[in-house]
Amino acid sequence: MKLTAISLSLLAFFAILFSGGSKAPHHEQVKNIFHEALTDGQSYEMLDYLSNSIGGRLSGSPQAAAAVEWAKQTLESLDIDTVYLQECMVPHWERGEKEKARILSDWIGQEDVQVCALGGSVGTGDMGITAGLIEVAHYEDIAKLSPAAVKGKIVFLNHPMDQAHYDTFHAYGECTAGRYNGAPEAAKMGAVGIVIRSLASGLNDYPHTGSMGYQDGIKKIPAAALSTAGAEYLSALLKHDSDTRLHLRMTCQQHPDALSYNVIGEIRGTEKPEEIVLVGGHLDSWDLADGAHDDGAGTVHAIETLRLFKDMNIKPKRTVRCVLFMNEENGQRGARKYAAEAKAKGENHVAAIESDRGGFAPRGWKVDAEDKAAIAANIDFIEEWLPDFKEYGVYDVEQGFSGVDIKHLKDQGTICLGFFPDPQRYFDYHHAPNDTFDKVNQRELELGAGTVASLAYVFAEYGKAGPVGSR
Amino acid sequence: MKLTAISLSLLAFFAILFSGGSKAPHHEQVKNIFHEALTDGQSYEMLDYLSNSIGGRLSGSPQAAAAVEWAKQTLESLDIDTVYLQECMVPHWERGEKEKARILSDWIGQEDVQVCALGGSVGTGDMGITAGLIEVAHYEDIAKLSPAAVKGKIVFLNHPMDQAHYDTFHAYGECTAGRYNGAPEAAKMGAVGIVIRSLASGLNDYPHTGSMGYQDGIKKIPAAALSTAGAEYLSALLKHDSDTRLHLRMTCQQHPDALSYNVIGEIRGTEKPEEIVLVGGHLDSWDLADGAHDDGAGTVHAIETLRLFKDMNIKPKRTVRCVLFMNEENGQRGARKYAAEAKAKGENHVAAIESDRGGFAPRGWKVDAEDKAAIAANIDFIEEWLPDFKEYGVYDVEQGFSGVDIKHLKDQGTICLGFFPDPQRYFDYHHAPNDTFDKVNQRELELGAGTVASLAYVFAEYGKAGPVGSR
Repeated sequence: MKLTAISLSLLAFFAILFSGGSKAPHHEQVKNIFHEALTDGQSYEMLDYLSNSIGGRLSGSPQAAAAVEWAKQTLESLDIDTVYLQECMVPHWERGEKEKARILSDWIGQEDVQVCALGGSVGTGDMGITAGLIEVAHYEDIAKLSPAAVKGKIVFLNHPMDQAHYDTFHAYGECTAGRYNGAPEAAKMGAVGIVIRSLASGLNDYPHTGSMGYQDGIKKIPAAALSTAGAEYLSALLKHDSDTRLHLRMTCQQHPDALSYNVIGEIRGTEKPEEIVLVGGHLDSWDLADGAHDDGAGTVHAIETLRLFKDMNIKPKRTVRCVLFMNEENGQRGARKYAAEAKAKGENHVAAIESDRGGFAPRGWKVDAEDKAAIAANIDFIEEWLPDFKEYGVYDVEQGFSGVDIKHLKDQGTICLGFFPDPQRYFDYHHAPNDTFDKVNQRELELGAGTVASLAYVFAEYGKAGPVGSR
Repeated sequence: MKLTAISLSLLAFFAILFSGGSKAPHHEQVKNIFHEALTDGQSYEMLDYLSNSIGGRLSGSPQAAAAVEWAKQTLESLDIDTVYLQECMVPHWERGEKEKARILSDWIGQEDVQVCALGGSVGTGDMGITAGLIEVAHYEDIAKLSPAAVKGKIVFLNHPMDQAHYDTFHAYGECTAGRYNGAPEAAKMGAVGIVIRSLASGLNDYPHTGSMGYQDGIKKIPAAALSTAGAEYLSALLKHDSDTRLHLRMTCQQHPDALSYNVIGEIRGTEKPEEIVLVGGHLDSWDLADGAHDDGAGTVHAIETLRLFKDMNIKPKRTVRCVLFMNEENGQRGARKYAAEAKAKGENHVAAIESDRGGFAPRGWKVDAEDKAAIAANIDFIEEWLPDFKEYGVYDVEQGFSGVDIKHLKDQGTICLGFFPDPQRYFDYHHAPNDTFDKVNQRELELGAGTVASLAYVFAEYGKAGPVGSR
């Protein structure tokens, strides 16, 4: 009897040593990370400071410089292995005075609607422009208009986000071409300006900005976004009276590129320090609000990951590096610089995690990589951990877009992992004057921090999976 | 070759006819219901009216009467088979003037903190009470105090909700005994009043009310809730100076029971009209705010279910009945009356769905029944449908508490189904002055309506599963 009991104990011991049992402490650690994030988290306090004491931080602005200094000091206060700045030149665009859009109608007289310049737009001149309107429902329709009908007018692109999609990013993606390329397309037809319906889920008076571009050799015309309520109203008036005109005034202007920085901090790996697990968000934001969700949330998720590791005395096998990218919103200069330097130095980023979909309750992960087999292998790998994550509402892992900043690492064999929180509210606040701290729920933000930190931990312990993996 | 092709076609035909293929149109219908709820939903507009044009609607109040009339008219406007009121007598408690809680301290002088009476509490008399304090961390600790230490004092129950739980209802459940039974327990020890820390997730100045009770033969002492920030402050002062006192003034009072109503509407089943699938929420709310989440959301989820069925021309096999219960918050009189009448009439409620966890993005279902095997069978049944629901973020079905109103049907063999939306924000608003319409996101509310309506549809088509089922 006694011998049998000892044999059983030994069997159990070896089973733990050589089987999945060796993973158990790591699974326990995921729980510990979430517990710490929820009960003693610091992400919410950090975001309060970034949102309310610094505010909107468009590339090249004084607030962007303040954000760089704050991020550096915050990372330094963690007493981690390395904190440094990485220089990058960024576009410097300024909105100027509050924009004006005034409908001029023989039917209702005049009515102001809420408007904002799209980022990168030229101004209208001090007296503004006043012109008739031609409405289109889709970006592709602009090229189908007759130049005679467009000449001298303002194109009004009124494309609502499709509410039928569960994933609001899907609906958003269907509308972005018009925001980015609408101005040159309209200019080719002889338009003097373009106003688009804000890319937003709700129907209200907030205008939503976002980046736009021009094309070489095509006249640069002013580009602006009307609030969704304003767009509905204008569209109704145009149906009643096609002679309805719009007065638009914007004093925005482009300055020479400015010097700015990515902010980087890391905890070096104990066993494979040359293998890097990146955790990132972007430090810049649009200027209309505080950028609390976009991407203050991702910024503090990334910093909090290192803070959790440090305060919980987690010593990762691989290097965990927090990268706060500059200029995601209107140029991706920080991300391009980072990826180029990583390649030049021959750095090995096994995985990169980006949080740039807001500080909402976590739902899942989007996995991307250059190699299809690597995507499948790493989805399988994360699925092994889903039971741990599901306890905290994270139930989904699938192939999908990872993030604007980390995608530049894809061609270096990096597994790119996009944090996917609940998407229902994001486009209520995205790029709009109401993207403020009070729209962030503390527990949702902290659950996001726990999710990001836990996945960083898993990849730091195990590396990436699959054919190109190093496990 | 030709024959073979025909055989294959026939095989495919029969496969569709006799296998899971027969289910396909029903799965398609789930998608259709969500599509309609998201693109042409009316739940948000209904909730706007209930919240902003009627407001807080505590049982016995004029607003509760208005809510009954509004619900009846709204259901009638759907042109469904039956709409009727079911009488019930309800408690009628009034808060009176805005409560006052003033800390009196030799150290800091005086400081007001935010407070509200717990529902059902007696008042303090017009001059209020002023007394020393004795702080406890847990409800159970009250009975362990020495009567000499408590006599003439106000018991201060300072039990924070545990942030470690993902499910905030779990944390809430750990604190409710103190709110409900704290007053008689404190009175037994000679206390002159009790103030509790609000049952809330966040740290702020909102006090959260909720029902409390007295015990026969035990002196009724005033019971109130301090905001979480107020509780933290008071606790810190008491640590510094145990002689810190509190002045508390509340003019609340209990009136005789009042006549009120459950509001009921139904679409009769085409094949098994005697089998009822109930969809419910509660029409009453606390008085401090508009009750937009608690339970305006559940109310419009239930009405919207019938509206969707009607407008989409869905003719359910079983009867789908919307029940808007009166007096969930402080008595459950409506629910008790409904269940008693159902039993007396011998009605057969195969399933009952309740939405009373707010208008947040849906996550899953809690399944309850008298019979364990029935719980398991119906979890399995719902799991068959999870792939359809998962498209809309609903991933979880498990045994758990269904709802305060429908639980009274459990002993009639009913499968009780609790709608479970994301729980992170609920206890920011629950029973507090900030439970207002602006805290509800349209898409989240509409996804909830789609989830409730879809599950009602599934049970209306298939009935309940398992050993007590009728499939």
